[in-house]
Amino acid sequence: MSTEIPDLPTEITPQSQDFGRWYIDVVRRAELADYSPVKGCMVIRPYGYAIWELMQQGLDRRFKATGHVNAYFPLFIPESLLMREAEHVEGFAPQVAWVTQGGNEELEERLVIRPTSETIIGTMYAKWVQSWRDLPILINQWANVVRWEKVTRLFLRTTEFLWQEGHTAHETAEEAQEETLRMLGVYKDFAENDLAMPVMDGEKTESEKFAGAVKTYSIEALMRDGRALQAGTSHNLGQNFSKSYEIKFQARDKSVQYVHTTSWGVSTRMIGGVIMTHGDDGGLILPPKVAPYQVVMVPIPRGNWRETVLPKAQQLRDALVARGIRVHIDDRDSQTPGWKFNEWELRGVPLRLEIGPKDLEKSQVVLARRDTREKSFVPMEGLAGHVEQLLAAIQQSLFDRAAQFRQEHTSRTDSYDEFTQIMDGRPGFVISPWCGSAACEAAIKTETQATIRNIPFGSEPATGKACIRCGGAATVHAWFAKSY
Amino acid sequence: MSTEIPDLPTEITPQSQDFGRWYIDVVRRAELADYSPVKGCMVIRPYGYAIWELMQQGLDRRFKATGHVNAYFPLFIPESLLMREAEHVEGFAPQVAWVTQGGNEELEERLVIRPTSETIIGTMYAKWVQSWRDLPILINQWANVVRWEKVTRLFLRTTEFLWQEGHTAHETAEEAQEETLRMLGVYKDFAENDLAMPVMDGEKTESEKFAGAVKTYSIEALMRDGRALQAGTSHNLGQNFSKSYEIKFQARDKSVQYVHTTSWGVSTRMIGGVIMTHGDDGGLILPPKVAPYQVVMVPIPRGNWRETVLPKAQQLRDALVARGIRVHIDDRDSQTPGWKFNEWELRGVPLRLEIGPKDLEKSQVVLARRDTREKSFVPMEGLAGHVEQLLAAIQQSLFDRAAQFRQEHTSRTDSYDEFTQIMDGRPGFVISPWCGSAACEAAIKTETQATIRNIPFGSEPATGKACIRCGGAATVHAWFAKSY
Repeated sequence: MSTEIPDLPTEITPQSQDFGRWYIDVVRRAELADYSPVKGCMVIRPYGYAIWELMQQGLDRRFKATGHVNAYFPLFIPESLLMREAEHVEGFAPQVAWVTQGGNEELEERLVIRPTSETIIGTMYAKWVQSWRDLPILINQWANVVRWEKVTRLFLRTTEFLWQEGHTAHETAEEAQEETLRMLGVYKDFAENDLAMPVMDGEKTESEKFAGAVKTYSIEALMRDGRALQAGTSHNLGQNFSKSYEIKFQARDKSVQYVHTTSWGVSTRMIGGVIMTHGDDGGLILPPKVAPYQVVMVPIPRGNWRETVLPKAQQLRDALVARGIRVHIDDRDSQTPGWKFNEWELRGVPLRLEIGPKDLEKSQVVLARRDTREKSFVPMEGLAGHVEQLLAAIQQSLFDRAAQFRQEHTSRTDSYDEFTQIMDGRPGFVISPWCGSAACEAAIKTETQATIRNIPFGSEPATGKACIRCGGAATVHAWFAKSY
Repeated sequence: MSTEIPDLPTEITPQSQDFGRWYIDVVRRAELADYSPVKGCMVIRPYGYAIWELMQQGLDRRFKATGHVNAYFPLFIPESLLMREAEHVEGFAPQVAWVTQGGNEELEERLVIRPTSETIIGTMYAKWVQSWRDLPILINQWANVVRWEKVTRLFLRTTEFLWQEGHTAHETAEEAQEETLRMLGVYKDFAENDLAMPVMDGEKTESEKFAGAVKTYSIEALMRDGRALQAGTSHNLGQNFSKSYEIKFQARDKSVQYVHTTSWGVSTRMIGGVIMTHGDDGGLILPPKVAPYQVVMVPIPRGNWRETVLPKAQQLRDALVARGIRVHIDDRDSQTPGWKFNEWELRGVPLRLEIGPKDLEKSQVVLARRDTREKSFVPMEGLAGHVEQLLAAIQQSLFDRAAQFRQEHTSRTDSYDEFTQIMDGRPGFVISPWCGSAACEAAIKTETQATIRNIPFGSEPATGKACIRCGGAATVHAWFAKSY
């Protein structure tokens, strides 16, 4: 399983030349993540992990505000337990890792490393739930999961990844459905407001549903190469798992009933989404809300700068930090300002602050935006307020830019010829009428690599239209795309 | 592997009757953790996990204040990688879980699930470190680890547990030693100030060292049954791992050298330490700094209390929350105030606030301390300040009480007869002169079950004394105890 780790890239391949190469170059060169000696597994380096910590905070706050609590369930699932929900097994068994030996002894029953935790959590809920008074259960877990992968794409597809998985149990079908949609809404809110990443929220088709779900909903983002990224999913599991795992309760009318469950998750994959939504040939561009450093200060080393410029920089840093802004002063002697400008641009820091002896004289600093590369002279007086405004403007501007990109890369067609032509290039979303049959969906995938990302909420009706593939009566307008 | 989970206990066994039973009753009845369908693995329930989250925050803040950053490394370690450091393998190989199959295929090389991450992290450091300029590396990881266990003791000994593991690399031996002691100091500070748990900090003997370490230091707490609990360890690994994993750098003098590494960790075991340091026959007693709810308000349901008492309680709650106090109002209709008093006592909430119609008239509330069970009438005016003071007093009082308990359960003897007599009961720490030989240490363990917990810093010299076991010249005063 041991694999060689290639050296870090020195240059970043331009997006236009090879988007996939650009992505890996940015991830590794910006020290977000790296390959590991274990096939399929990545190392999340401190700079990348700091982004994940900010994402966790943004999500966790929202989970708690909607009444959820965190808990932790075992990494291992006994084989017999996994096997109880038929569709679920079929979906996951081919991609799980098996533990067969513990210490020096062969195990009597093999253990699966969790690919997701419905089965083990369902088993515990069956113990904990007796009466309708015990409901709802609203639990989330931050954890690592394992799904065996042949290829490794850092953040996007790895054998082990980090995620959160919410698992809830409810008295009624209505409450479970409300919860499912509420959490999809939380994901959309987080993606758009914290990650500046516009997403389409909607329902997955039967063939793209989670193994064991009644309904699966997703948020889908559009990457700069025209491919879609599924950035989060929320599942209404109905009574499928409660029946398989015997999660029963005495209802208000004294009858014994099965609970209705949901599950929902997002993962470190979202980091990949941020990179591919905002980045450019200069490297990463981080939305301020998830940037480990929102401002990097580069003092210009002239004369006795360590006695003059640096103390002033530290004073300004303290004023910014007091306002809750994340600031780093890069005062390394070993590198030139030019090298530092380039480095922090590559690492996607939203704002660079330059300060030298001349700025001290004029009581000003230079602020350079990463997104537009605009530079401006700003007085030291009132700097914190100015920086706050700029960070908010960058956050909004990144969202707007991404929304415009999506709009420019979303097309509509009722013709399959046109559809296949579009799918040849860097397609984006294509909205087309579809009859609802899995056969058409599969044929389109085989012929064009495009899949239905979802049927967005409020999608216009397809009354009177013909399915783009079979010509039969269309039931909906589906959003197609090539995807990660 | 599937095991039956017993029903939750309804009563809590008194400590004096069976301390081990008391512990499990408290852990399960207070819903901190539970057994799982997987042998050796526990479920950390929301109330227990909330304590862990507060511990994580207290530790993480201290790690970052001392210059550390977080990262994440793979769960899996290829067998060949684990095998490189000879002592380390010998220590860990008997207790690891083996993955032998991924998806449908048998693996060419077996994977170990990390029991600790020196090997995989060392391999990455070898890639990342080139020059002295890349040092020090100060990384921490929050993760799950697996060490195969035959018995399950919730929080104290489980096959899978949660922990943090710091892994640092340094230019010089001195810096590595400083780091090792600095982090032990961080643990002591956290244990004593946040957990109100007094600990002895000192050096482990050769035979109790971490597998592969040059020196191991620990903090040791004393539980109410007179047994010691190792609550955290910090290891100076010298160049053992850097030589096995080829972590080399070009030094300031251009020579190529091996780095000096350290590692240090604490785990969810600390939750067990808190329970057994402070708890009583009424259940859990939580130090305010790690109590998920610092105050539980119980409104007394008389008359139209939902229109009168409850809004006032909510108003007071908001005033407390605004001061950063964690408050919960238990306004359930389904339970009586008496039941609620008992329940929150069992769950260890530091302060109970009672408020009823009569209190409203007098503009006062009742505050009941969990630790002393003292009740007092307190005016609503200035309540938040009063509660803050009380919480600080409880925090301090719990520490003082535990320190006094330790003092009362620490004895000194130069006689092996007396030593063995003490070790028969609920011993506490016993300080005795020791010659430094592993043979004596092993004999004492066999004969009395006591181990040397550590040689505390500043331990008085043993000059002229005889080893308690062999009568030879003693080199130090060692702290012995039976331990978890």
